[in-house]
Amino acid sequence: MKALEEKILSDGEVLPGGVLKVGSFLNHHMDIKFLMEMGKDMADAFKGDSVTKILTVEASGIAFAVAVANYLGVPLTFAKKNKTSNVSSDTFSASVDSFTHGRTYEITVPKEYISENDRILIVDDFLACGNAIKGLCKIVSDAKATVVGAACAIEKGFQGGGDELRAAGLKIHSLAIVESMDNGKITFRQN
Amino acid sequence: MKALEEKILSDGEVLPGGVLKVGSFLNHHMDIKFLMEMGKDMADAFKGDSVTKILTVEASGIAFAVAVANYLGVPLTFAKKNKTSNVSSDTFSASVDSFTHGRTYEITVPKEYISENDRILIVDDFLACGNAIKGLCKIVSDAKATVVGAACAIEKGFQGGGDELRAAGLKIHSLAIVESMDNGKITFRQN
Repeated sequence: MKALEEKILSDGEVLPGGVLKVGSFLNHHMDIKFLMEMGKDMADAFKGDSVTKILTVEASGIAFAVAVANYLGVPLTFAKKNKTSNVSSDTFSASVDSFTHGRTYEITVPKEYISENDRILIVDDFLACGNAIKGLCKIVSDAKATVVGAACAIEKGFQGGGDELRAAGLKIHSLAIVESMDNGKITFRQN
Repeated sequence: MKALEEKILSDGEVLPGGVLKVGSFLNHHMDIKFLMEMGKDMADAFKGDSVTKILTVEASGIAFAVAVANYLGVPLTFAKKNKTSNVSSDTFSASVDSFTHGRTYEITVPKEYISENDRILIVDDFLACGNAIKGLCKIVSDAKATVVGAACAIEKGFQGGGDELRAAGLKIHSLAIVESMDNGKITFRQN
């Protein structure tokens, strides 16, 4: 999505440690018109996949997930993050290592929110090492439902998570793929 | 909003300790069409107030805030919650006592996301004692911006926070006001 690449170049910030800060427009302070456009673009990529539900992770994935859900016309739910293990018989759960925050947390979804017949589209604002998506895939698998793919606003291609998941057969669509941030200069993967 | 009252009666659960659980349709698992209808209804209530920005609190307020922002055509941002004090020169912050979780947390918003000229609409999924709204009002006040009002999906009228804020002069609009949940029976305030 050309408009997203341009926004990343104009408003994104490369921080030490390989962090790309896009809170000013993507996942913390949001331009609603742009957010809905991103949602429409993403929905177009999955409109033939009979998606029945969107699954994301709190908190930064929720707004983008609402935008995608609006154009696919399907319900959405989000996994909650806990710093400590919070395994319960009423929830599906998975452990996720966070690249940005340098820690492991537990994500959980109430069992009642995913059924075996669901065809789940995983949505997230970022895809780096792919750990959040792997955790969400485990949850969908534990629920005996189907993952139809993963929809990410920004993929950090150089961290390899997206390509690893593609190689494993998962349909991944990212609106912008950052190929390099060396020396603070952002370049995108060409389609 | 009649449809919300009906949804609360059919799908809401009254839990011990005066908690109304509506996660299955409002703030954890969401029917996107219904969510957007609620957003439109709420936007209509504030369309004459020259709102420039929506402010909510993570995580359960974000989806509803996106829906309201979509119909008002204004950007949105959310306050992050921290269990520990996280005061920084780069953020506005406030302490909030949570009724549902029985603890105090700190909410913060980066200073760059609110400017003095902003006319802020506070949006949240729930209004009980009003502590989250008071905390958000403090943040807007610290930013020298203006609060035009507070928009809540469900107000628990019997906890008094909404009426206290109205008495203080704040414009509050709630899509449904639960007047009583005595013995598990939900009744609504008549307009």
